[in-house]
Amino acid sequence: MNKKGINSDFSLEFYLKHKREFINQALLTILSKFDNKRELISAMKYSLMANGKRLRPVLCIASAKCIAKPDEKFDDSIILPACAIEMIHTYSLIHDDLPAMDDDDLRRGKPTLHKKFSEATAILTGDALLTHAFYILSKPSLFPFKSLPSDVLLNIIGTISDAAGTNGMIEGQMLDMKAELISYQEKKSNQNIEFVEDKSSLMYLKKMHTLKTGEMIKASVEAGAIAARADKNQLNNLSCYAQNIGMAFQIADDILDIEGDSSVMGKSVGSDTANKKLTFPQLIGLDKSKKYAEELISNALEALETFGKKALPLQKIANYIIERKH
Amino acid sequence: MNKKGINSDFSLEFYLKHKREFINQALLTILSKFDNKRELISAMKYSLMANGKRLRPVLCIASAKCIAKPDEKFDDSIILPACAIEMIHTYSLIHDDLPAMDDDDLRRGKPTLHKKFSEATAILTGDALLTHAFYILSKPSLFPFKSLPSDVLLNIIGTISDAAGTNGMIEGQMLDMKAELISYQEKKSNQNIEFVEDKSSLMYLKKMHTLKTGEMIKASVEAGAIAARADKNQLNNLSCYAQNIGMAFQIADDILDIEGDSSVMGKSVGSDTANKKLTFPQLIGLDKSKKYAEELISNALEALETFGKKALPLQKIANYIIERKH
Repeated sequence: MNKKGINSDFSLEFYLKHKREFINQALLTILSKFDNKRELISAMKYSLMANGKRLRPVLCIASAKCIAKPDEKFDDSIILPACAIEMIHTYSLIHDDLPAMDDDDLRRGKPTLHKKFSEATAILTGDALLTHAFYILSKPSLFPFKSLPSDVLLNIIGTISDAAGTNGMIEGQMLDMKAELISYQEKKSNQNIEFVEDKSSLMYLKKMHTLKTGEMIKASVEAGAIAARADKNQLNNLSCYAQNIGMAFQIADDILDIEGDSSVMGKSVGSDTANKKLTFPQLIGLDKSKKYAEELISNALEALETFGKKALPLQKIANYIIERKH
Repeated sequence: MNKKGINSDFSLEFYLKHKREFINQALLTILSKFDNKRELISAMKYSLMANGKRLRPVLCIASAKCIAKPDEKFDDSIILPACAIEMIHTYSLIHDDLPAMDDDDLRRGKPTLHKKFSEATAILTGDALLTHAFYILSKPSLFPFKSLPSDVLLNIIGTISDAAGTNGMIEGQMLDMKAELISYQEKKSNQNIEFVEDKSSLMYLKKMHTLKTGEMIKASVEAGAIAARADKNQLNNLSCYAQNIGMAFQIADDILDIEGDSSVMGKSVGSDTANKKLTFPQLIGLDKSKKYAEELISNALEALETFGKKALPLQKIANYIIERKH
C-alpha cells in the first residue's frame, strides 16, 4: 500500500473514538483504586468522566506514536502521562468554574461541580485531581500499565508541572481574570468598543492563551515525545506543531462563539460578544481571525513533515481543530 | 565528648532557628526565579514567607540526618523535598482559609490571602504552590542545591503526593468539613453537648487528624529518610515516630485552645469550645487528652531508640510538640 493509500484509509473519527475509549477505560481503572462511596471520589468521577473531548491525552498518544518504531505498541506505556494530563485539565476546569472565578453553572451540558456538590467539595476535588496526576506518574507500578524509566517519568512530571504552574496555565488564568476586570471597567465606563485593532490588546490576548491553554497542549505533545525518547530535533518539531495548534484551537473557539450552532455545541453562543470578552474576532475581525488560524495550522503541518506518515493522526487533529463544530 | 555531653550541649531553640533560616533562604532562592512584580508571585511569597514554624521541613531534614553518615553533609540535597513539603502545607492553609471552607480572616496574625488579595487569587496561588512543589522536585538541576537520583526523587514525589492527596490530607479536610456540618446541625437542634465520651466520634476524630495533618507529617519524615537511603527497618521506625508525633501535635493544639495564652499564640483561644468543634478534650476530657499525648510521645521516642544520638533533633522535636506554648 502506498503512502496515499494509507492516508485515505485513515479515519480521524474512528481514531478519536478508539483512543477516547482507551483513555476513558484507563481513567476508570485509576479511579477504581478508590472507595466509590466517598464523596470526594464521586466528585472526581463526576468531572473526569463528563464526556470530555480528551484532546490533550489523544495528542500525547499520537505524539508518542510519531516517534516510536512503527511496530512498537506504545499506547500502554503512555497512558499514565495521558491520564495525568486529562486530570490536570479537569481540575483546571473545576477551579475556573468556581463562583470566585468564571462563576459558571454549566459545563458540558451538566451542572458544574460546585453546583452539583458544593463549593468546598469543588475546590478540594480540583486539588485532589491535580495531586493525583503526580501520584500516578510517580507510582506507576500500582497500575496495570507498562511503566517508563524513572528519569523519563521525572522529565514528564517536570514538563507537565511547568506547563500547569506559575509560568503556564495558572498565570494564564490570572491574566484572564484581569482581562475580565478590564472588560468590566470598560462596560462600567459605558464605552462601546465594537472593533479595535489594538496591538497591545492582541499581544495580551496571545500571551493569555499561550499560557492558559497553549502550554498544556504543548506539554501533552511533549510528554508523548519524551516517553517515546524523542531526540532534541524531533522534540523541537513537535513543540512547534503544538504551539501552533494550541493558538489555532483558541481562535477556533472564539470563531465558534460567533458562528457555531448552539445545538451542536451543547452551550449557548454569542456569550463572548455579550460579555465584551477579549477575543480574536473582536480585536482583528472575523476574516483575519480565520486566516490567522489557517496560517497557524499550516505552520503546524510543516513542522510535522519530517515524521512522514507516522504523523498522520497529528496532521488530521490539526485540521480538525479549525474544522470542528464544537 | 561523650554521648551525654553531646546531649546536654544540644539546644533545640538554636537548632530550629538555624534550620528555619536555612529553609527560609532556600524558599526565597526558589521564588527568586520568578518575576517579583507579578501578583501571583507576590501572593505566593506573602503566604510562603509568613513566619511559619517550618515544622514539616525541619522534620524532613532531621530525619535525613538520622540515617545519613555522621560526617555526611546532607542538608543541601534534602532542601528541595523540604521546601516542596512546606509549599504543599502552605497551599493547604490558603485553601482551608477560603470563605467556602473555614472562612478565616487571619492567619499567623496577618490577613488571610483571600482577604489581602482576592478569592480568585487565593485559589490560584494555592494551586500554584501545589504544582510548583512537584516542579522543584522534578527539575532539581534548575536550583543551586545538590540533587538526588531520579528514582529517589520519584519515590519522594510518590510519598508526598500520596500523603497530600485523595487518601490523605484532602480527604482529611473533607472529613473536617463534614464534622463542622454535624456540629452545626447539633447547634441548630439546641442540644448542649458538653462532654461525651463517644467512641465513634473519637474514631472519626482520630481518622480525620491522621488524614488531615498526620499523613503529611509522616511524609515529611519519610521523605528525609528516603533521600538518605533508609532501609526498610529504619523507614518503619521513622514512620512510627512520625505517626505518633502527628497525633500528639493535634491533641496539643486542642489543649492549647483551652489552656494557651492568646498573647503568646498570636490568635484567640477558646474558639474550639465556642464553636463546639470536635476536639480531644471535648470527647475524652482534658486530663485524659494530656495523658494520651504523653503516651504518644513516649511511643515516638521508643521508635527512635535504634538510631542512638543521631536521633537527638527528632527526640527534642517530639518533646517540644507537647511542651510548646504556641
